[in-house]
Amino acid sequence: MGKGAQTRETILDLASRRAAVLGLEGVTFGDLARELSLSKSGLYAHFRSKEALQVEVLDREAGAFTDSVVRVALKAPRGEARVRALFDGWLGWMHAKKDTGCLFAAAAAELDDRPGPVRDRLVEQQRDLDELFVSVVRTAVKEGAFRADLDPEQFTFEAHGMILIFHHDSRLLESAQALQRARRGFDRLVDDASAR
Amino acid sequence: MGKGAQTRETILDLASRRAAVLGLEGVTFGDLARELSLSKSGLYAHFRSKEALQVEVLDREAGAFTDSVVRVALKAPRGEARVRALFDGWLGWMHAKKDTGCLFAAAAAELDDRPGPVRDRLVEQQRDLDELFVSVVRTAVKEGAFRADLDPEQFTFEAHGMILIFHHDSRLLESAQALQRARRGFDRLVDDASAR
Repeated sequence: MGKGAQTRETILDLASRRAAVLGLEGVTFGDLARELSLSKSGLYAHFRSKEALQVEVLDREAGAFTDSVVRVALKAPRGEARVRALFDGWLGWMHAKKDTGCLFAAAAAELDDRPGPVRDRLVEQQRDLDELFVSVVRTAVKEGAFRADLDPEQFTFEAHGMILIFHHDSRLLESAQALQRARRGFDRLVDDASAR
Repeated sequence: MGKGAQTRETILDLASRRAAVLGLEGVTFGDLARELSLSKSGLYAHFRSKEALQVEVLDREAGAFTDSVVRVALKAPRGEARVRALFDGWLGWMHAKKDTGCLFAAAAAELDDRPGPVRDRLVEQQRDLDELFVSVVRTAVKEGAFRADLDPEQFTFEAHGMILIFHHDSRLLESAQALQRARRGFDRLVDDASAR
């Protein structure tokens, strides 16, 4: 990695950590420059705007999610096992972010009424994840593990709801039962979808 | 209402509208004073601190929720009808906030890692709402409408998840199906809970 690429990585790294705590809007070129002892114009040489930096922070986090959740889940056998692996990985990701908060969850609340390129990217990422989930559920239907009349979009909507209430209850209410409740809710969802 | 009380209401009104869009932290005494042509010290005479004002904004919104959702639901007959009325009212509340966003949902994301009196109040309000929902479900169990082995906390967790994913999908993804999906998911939850 060249020096330029290294500096870029260092900036993104710090920006991601700050964004998880303060929200994407909490990341300013001024603060980053101060903390890294760089000039603001030096930062602009790497990221042409605050929005461009925010989009890269989101992309970086999405890349980490793909590596630690999606790739792992896609190694599970097609059908129910893969649906479970994807949900478990997603829930595990949220659980691991219990102390800092999940950047995507924070960004969703922050950006839902702020049109622009950053919101567009987040929407794209959330749609991609929902669509991946739907396709994995659809395969489970095709392979006969899940009922033929199951609605994969509805299943995904409800599974995603379980992830959001887990995040809400574990972060805000500091509920010790949230993880177990999310798993139990998902089990019920799978039971109801099962062809057996 | 005296002049002092009227001014107080006017301040709270503007603060609530700003908070729904900008988050609670987006409400500053400086902005409020400017927009209402009041002095900052005049504002401090009504609210001794920014936190005190934020707590009142939350209380005011919780009062509105009680009036338009809880009171109405409690008029429905005990049992399944009341559980449905409470969920429908809650979902309708979120749906009505589709354009501005729900203050509680925004505050949950904003405050989950900011300890202090404002977070404490929000936590208290969320717990009160969950507990009310649990008690209404428990009554449905006692009256034989829902299965005797139903876990009312689990039911509430899943119903609340449906509300959160509705808010997420309708606000961020601008999904036209979210309302129907939330209702369908809740119907499944009720079916599964039913004693019949």
